[in-house]
Amino acid sequence: MPTVHEEFWRLVRALGMTTVFGNPGSTELTFLSHFPSDLRYVLGLQEGAVVAMADGFAQVAGAPVLVNLHTAPGVGNAMGALLSARDSHAPLVVTAGNQVRPMLTARHWLVNDEPTMLPRPAVKFAYEPPRAQDLPAAVARAAHLAMSPPRGPVLVSMPQDDYAELMDTSAVDDLVARTVGTRSAPESGAVRDLAGRLVAARNPALVLGLSADAAGGRDHAIALARHQYLPVYAAPSSGRSVFPSDDRLFAGYLPFGAELIHDELADHDLVVVVGAPVFTCYPYLPSRLVPRGTQLVMVSDDPDEIARAPLGDAVLADPGLALAALAAEVRTLGETTRPLRPEQAPPAAPRPSGETRPAAAEIFAALGPALPQRLRMTNESPSNLADFHTYVPLTFAPCGYLTTANGGLGYGLPAGVGAALADPGTPVLVVVGEGSLQYTGQALWTAAQHRAPVVTLVLRNDEYAILEAYRDFQLVGEAPGLNIPGLDTVAFAQSYGVPGRRVDDGPEAVRDAVLAALDSGGPALIEVPIATGVPSLV
Amino acid sequence: MPTVHEEFWRLVRALGMTTVFGNPGSTELTFLSHFPSDLRYVLGLQEGAVVAMADGFAQVAGAPVLVNLHTAPGVGNAMGALLSARDSHAPLVVTAGNQVRPMLTARHWLVNDEPTMLPRPAVKFAYEPPRAQDLPAAVARAAHLAMSPPRGPVLVSMPQDDYAELMDTSAVDDLVARTVGTRSAPESGAVRDLAGRLVAARNPALVLGLSADAAGGRDHAIALARHQYLPVYAAPSSGRSVFPSDDRLFAGYLPFGAELIHDELADHDLVVVVGAPVFTCYPYLPSRLVPRGTQLVMVSDDPDEIARAPLGDAVLADPGLALAALAAEVRTLGETTRPLRPEQAPPAAPRPSGETRPAAAEIFAALGPALPQRLRMTNESPSNLADFHTYVPLTFAPCGYLTTANGGLGYGLPAGVGAALADPGTPVLVVVGEGSLQYTGQALWTAAQHRAPVVTLVLRNDEYAILEAYRDFQLVGEAPGLNIPGLDTVAFAQSYGVPGRRVDDGPEAVRDAVLAALDSGGPALIEVPIATGVPSLV
Repeated sequence: MPTVHEEFWRLVRALGMTTVFGNPGSTELTFLSHFPSDLRYVLGLQEGAVVAMADGFAQVAGAPVLVNLHTAPGVGNAMGALLSARDSHAPLVVTAGNQVRPMLTARHWLVNDEPTMLPRPAVKFAYEPPRAQDLPAAVARAAHLAMSPPRGPVLVSMPQDDYAELMDTSAVDDLVARTVGTRSAPESGAVRDLAGRLVAARNPALVLGLSADAAGGRDHAIALARHQYLPVYAAPSSGRSVFPSDDRLFAGYLPFGAELIHDELADHDLVVVVGAPVFTCYPYLPSRLVPRGTQLVMVSDDPDEIARAPLGDAVLADPGLALAALAAEVRTLGETTRPLRPEQAPPAAPRPSGETRPAAAEIFAALGPALPQRLRMTNESPSNLADFHTYVPLTFAPCGYLTTANGGLGYGLPAGVGAALADPGTPVLVVVGEGSLQYTGQALWTAAQHRAPVVTLVLRNDEYAILEAYRDFQLVGEAPGLNIPGLDTVAFAQSYGVPGRRVDDGPEAVRDAVLAALDSGGPALIEVPIATGVPSLV
Repeated sequence: MPTVHEEFWRLVRALGMTTVFGNPGSTELTFLSHFPSDLRYVLGLQEGAVVAMADGFAQVAGAPVLVNLHTAPGVGNAMGALLSARDSHAPLVVTAGNQVRPMLTARHWLVNDEPTMLPRPAVKFAYEPPRAQDLPAAVARAAHLAMSPPRGPVLVSMPQDDYAELMDTSAVDDLVARTVGTRSAPESGAVRDLAGRLVAARNPALVLGLSADAAGGRDHAIALARHQYLPVYAAPSSGRSVFPSDDRLFAGYLPFGAELIHDELADHDLVVVVGAPVFTCYPYLPSRLVPRGTQLVMVSDDPDEIARAPLGDAVLADPGLALAALAAEVRTLGETTRPLRPEQAPPAAPRPSGETRPAAAEIFAALGPALPQRLRMTNESPSNLADFHTYVPLTFAPCGYLTTANGGLGYGLPAGVGAALADPGTPVLVVVGEGSLQYTGQALWTAAQHRAPVVTLVLRNDEYAILEAYRDFQLVGEAPGLNIPGLDTVAFAQSYGVPGRRVDDGPEAVRDAVLAALDSGGPALIEVPIATGVPSLV
């Protein structure tokens, strides 16, 4: 009779979870022992980095990823990253060790005595099997739920003595044999109705969010937009890019504030939002999200995303399948008579910072046109996001661009490392502030160990500039804790075995350094001191 | 009429919370703005480090400490450290920002839509005031609960627009005027009974845990032990030291495994445990905790600590008051006729590692006798804990020694920094492995910014040695993820502005470097490569 451990790995393999991200403690040793040689274990030095690396990996792979964390302290350390994974809809199957079952009733060292409460509300399913032999079924249930809409993290707590128990194979035979389809198409009536509204509209627009990319909707969105001459916006604060930003039909990145969104969309009589909340706003600029004369329809596979929207019609369906069905349906309704959007004007040259250090916009303007086409990017330099969008085209797909889906920091670097591990043939450029770098910088070590092709561009301004921008916007006066002097991110990279250098001789030198680092095929960090000006928030 | 903000700070001041630890995001700017000039804000670069620094500060100060975290992502990142604070009984009043109230119903950026679920089960009270004007009352309730037994962290979620609201002063006048006594003495009958049992016992022993030190019980424990010739043990895995380890009556650190504890205590007919769980065990060595012939009585102010104990009588009372009452009561019962414990033999010389690098024991043996008397220490080099206990006397009080109370990593360094900030006149020596350093190493930056007298001694063995020890103990075979090569902790320190050096020319050189660094009065990091031998766990 095989052990629970053997049956567990057989199931994991059948579920396709062949790369495991983890940070172990003693309660994970039974999990790790005799680790199957056909699977890969990726070690991270802190749990936030571990989970965010797995998040990036899962988004690029489009598949569930197994994560192994250390009982209560490890799950606790990961909670910020798990909240982020929830909001980026990363299908993470998190397993956490626990003490041996005979010790669970007291709070001994490393006992997780409320293992299903601790990960809430970041996970949609948290479970500790009542018996050792129930572990495979619990993991199967967890993995299928992680991949079911809305995708997101789940957690199974595993008492460490369970693995050595014996179990018969019949239950796992059945679990291994299952195929589980988790994508549901829109009903045909809803497709016909929405296609009809699109065709009949005077000036409709399409808004795309991260789930449209995750569901493989990009090409269908392009077909739909081209057929209907639809301007296409990126949803506010979208965690992934969808539509190529250099396409003539790309209308830009919607701003985050409700009033600004309202004004941006005012000319449209119909707005169709696919794969995004309606809308994720920040800061507070009170307004209805669209004018009363604008109809809004959202397509989402997330029931709560639909339920919490303050206005508009909705269709619960897989965004990719919905876009495919819409693109096919409009083709049956003839050509559009709407005019094609004018060509995008190239961006104006960036304004020099007026300081010795360049502005981030100057860096991006030099870098953007020179970047290779085959490149993933992540961004977590929030004060410079608008400049990044202006000067750096986002065109690679799928999952060509990742950023925080909920505003939390510590996502961009590890997500980039995970993306590179999932697809080593595509290098990753991580743009990050030196403040953001501090939350999960341990991912640099994993990049070094795996020689992952990840170039980290640190824009260092010695401050939390985005907070200064919010401060000025909110007119709240002086505040402590916004300056972060004295960080040497080149030494930081070196401490993890990642080659680092500081480039302070102009945007062209930064561009050349980034391109050379991307060519190197391994990890590198480039620190660029930038001007300390505070951007205007709106 | 004053604002909620003004009344909030008036209350915070009255509660004595004059140092605030935090890591801000935009939702904390209204909290931080016009920060009172008579209070101190201590910035940490990541939330785990922030909370553990506050934990160390609170334990040294013996007072509630205000912590300010960033809405959902910040609280999430802090959950591991909050679980640790729960188990070390640190009275942390955690405040977390939230979005403006008009945005709370949807999951906008940085909305914490389940603010009272996220921090569970690490906090014993989690609350978001229903109205802005309820904020001071919520914080008062939280602070009194944090200080009430069992001490521990609490959390108040604060929508960021609440501070600007107006409120009348009468409610806060009453809150400010309150005095709240949170310590309860044992009933006199229980004291008489326990004193009588102690005096009548043939060979009783005292076991002291962290709450005995936190409750100021050390001197009373010394008086009680000296009067009754009681051997005194440190409780298993105690987060603080209590009894001076160089005292003739000190009987040693109880091991962590149940069977080992049972054997260690077998000669005692009565064991009195004060301020500790009965007992926090690890690993699993199945056994009754004491022989059937041994009576056990625990004194604790933690109802659940008492309720979950598997055996023994219990008295619910403040450990410090109970020790004082017991010491007074036994004095009324005459002198003991029990023999005094023999003098402790000095430890045997450490066994050389047999490698080029020294064993940790050799470092400790050189260091221990040379350390200044006025010195706090923390330890998070778990594979070397037994050697540390053997060679390094722990005598300073109160709160002379801090370590993880639940086995989670990332506590020792930030707790040491917090301790130094609470009592800058007493330097801190942090002993840490390079693996442990990775969880909350950001605390080095805070140490550098405040020039805190914290010397970090990194014992680097390029592995998670404690996990290898557990692996060998559990006979679970080879496992990935236990080696952590390529970490340069000197560069790591430098990245935060902390002077660092590597010392690889022997234990005496390490001793001299540590003493010089302690003399410097500021932060420093000393990396010592040590032998990679795996200690035996039992």
